Amino acid sequence: MKLYSYWRSTTSFRVRAALNLKGVAYDTMPVDLLAGAQGSTDYAALNPGKGVPTLVLEDGTVLVQSMAIMDYLDRVYPTPALLPDDPLQRTGVLAAAHVFALDVHPVNNLRTVKHLQSKLDASAEDVKAWMLHWMDEGCKTLEVLLPERAGFAFGPAPGLADLCITAQLYNAHRWGLDLAPYPKIRRIEAACLEVPAIRAAHPDNQPDAKDAT
Amino acid sequence: MKLYSYWRSTTSFRVRAALNLKGVAYDTMPVDLLAGAQGSTDYAALNPGKGVPTLVLEDGTVLVQSMAIMDYLDRVYPTPALLPDDPLQRTGVLAAAHVFALDVHPVNNLRTVKHLQSKLDASAEDVKAWMLHWMDEGCKTLEVLLPERAGFAFGPAPGLADLCITAQLYNAHRWGLDLAPYPKIRRIEAACLEVPAIRAAHPDNQPDAKDAT
Repeated sequence: MKLYSYWRSTTSFRVRAALNLKGVAYDTMPVDLLAGAQGSTDYAALNPGKGVPTLVLEDGTVLVQSMAIMDYLDRVYPTPALLPDDPLQRTGVLAAAHVFALDVHPVNNLRTVKHLQSKLDASAEDVKAWMLHWMDEGCKTLEVLLPERAGFAFGPAPGLADLCITAQLYNAHRWGLDLAPYPKIRRIEAACLEVPAIRAAHPDNQPDAKDAT
Repeated sequence: MKLYSYWRSTTSFRVRAALNLKGVAYDTMPVDLLAGAQGSTDYAALNPGKGVPTLVLEDGTVLVQSMAIMDYLDRVYPTPALLPDDPLQRTGVLAAAHVFALDVHPVNNLRTVKHLQSKLDASAEDVKAWMLHWMDEGCKTLEVLLPERAGFAFGPAPGLADLCITAQLYNAHRWGLDLAPYPKIRRIEAACLEVPAIRAAHPDNQPDAKDAT
């Protein structure tokens, strides 16, 4: 398999973590978002949404949209499961995952920020306030939705919500979000970063991270 | 069941359509987003994200996040199915659904727009351009991802992608998006609006629509 991804992309991070947890081998194909590589003709032919990640299966089948890719992985490689089987438990994990994956990430996406700058003359300060506002809103919501427990968000092993949280927190640290009010979220990130498969998926451990700085 | 929703909300529309297709009875509990009812203490206790919809089951269990609610409904009321069982077909339907549900809707959400106005001094013209830009980007992507066929997006009956598309198109019409370049999307909406269960879920047919104008 080939995973077209960008080291700092939170959607790439969560899909890498899912692949690693399930023990699925893949080659990383870096897509340099800052250089605009996602807009190249070749890449857009692969991923018409011009986003990352894109997963290309052994037979050449192309999968797009990170949450749809993770659903596929959870069905084809069911162990360890990212989602519980019980419908009620499952919707709880999905809802928590969606707070960051739907309510925060798309609004804080690189393309959204670039659009703010080019069309609404957003300054660097405006952009920082924008990023922090949506992340903070998401954290506030999640801290209420998440159960009071030790370790991972919902079960004895990391699941979909844990991966979405850990990936988004990478961005939160990068932008300097104050996480002090969110002990549940911090606990989940700490538990996840103890897991070698998730640590291996961290942006700092990607091949394209080396070229970047 | 009780569905807390707002007539014009596209996330409410898609969940109503899913409930209706599956023949699940529910009472509509209107939440007036324009009046800020989603921020009331009572509603925020139900839905910490202060969004719509919220589904309250017969036993009082509270479900949030529209896509997580639809996953629950598809498991507990499997007929008619919103998603195919085959992992590859399923990820294709999810990916198409996510173009609007993840890439467009959150960026065009009422709260996002209000924030643009209050923090970035966006004018009415800026807001209109913002709405149309993201919808048009989503349509461009979808028109490539969707298969060439007649009727619904992927199968002989409306599924998750069809519902996300039809709900988003309500918003597209409202803002005056030019849909001429998107025949596949228009065909899907037309097929969906022929289905009585989906038509009954349309914003214009909600109790709170009457009070609004």
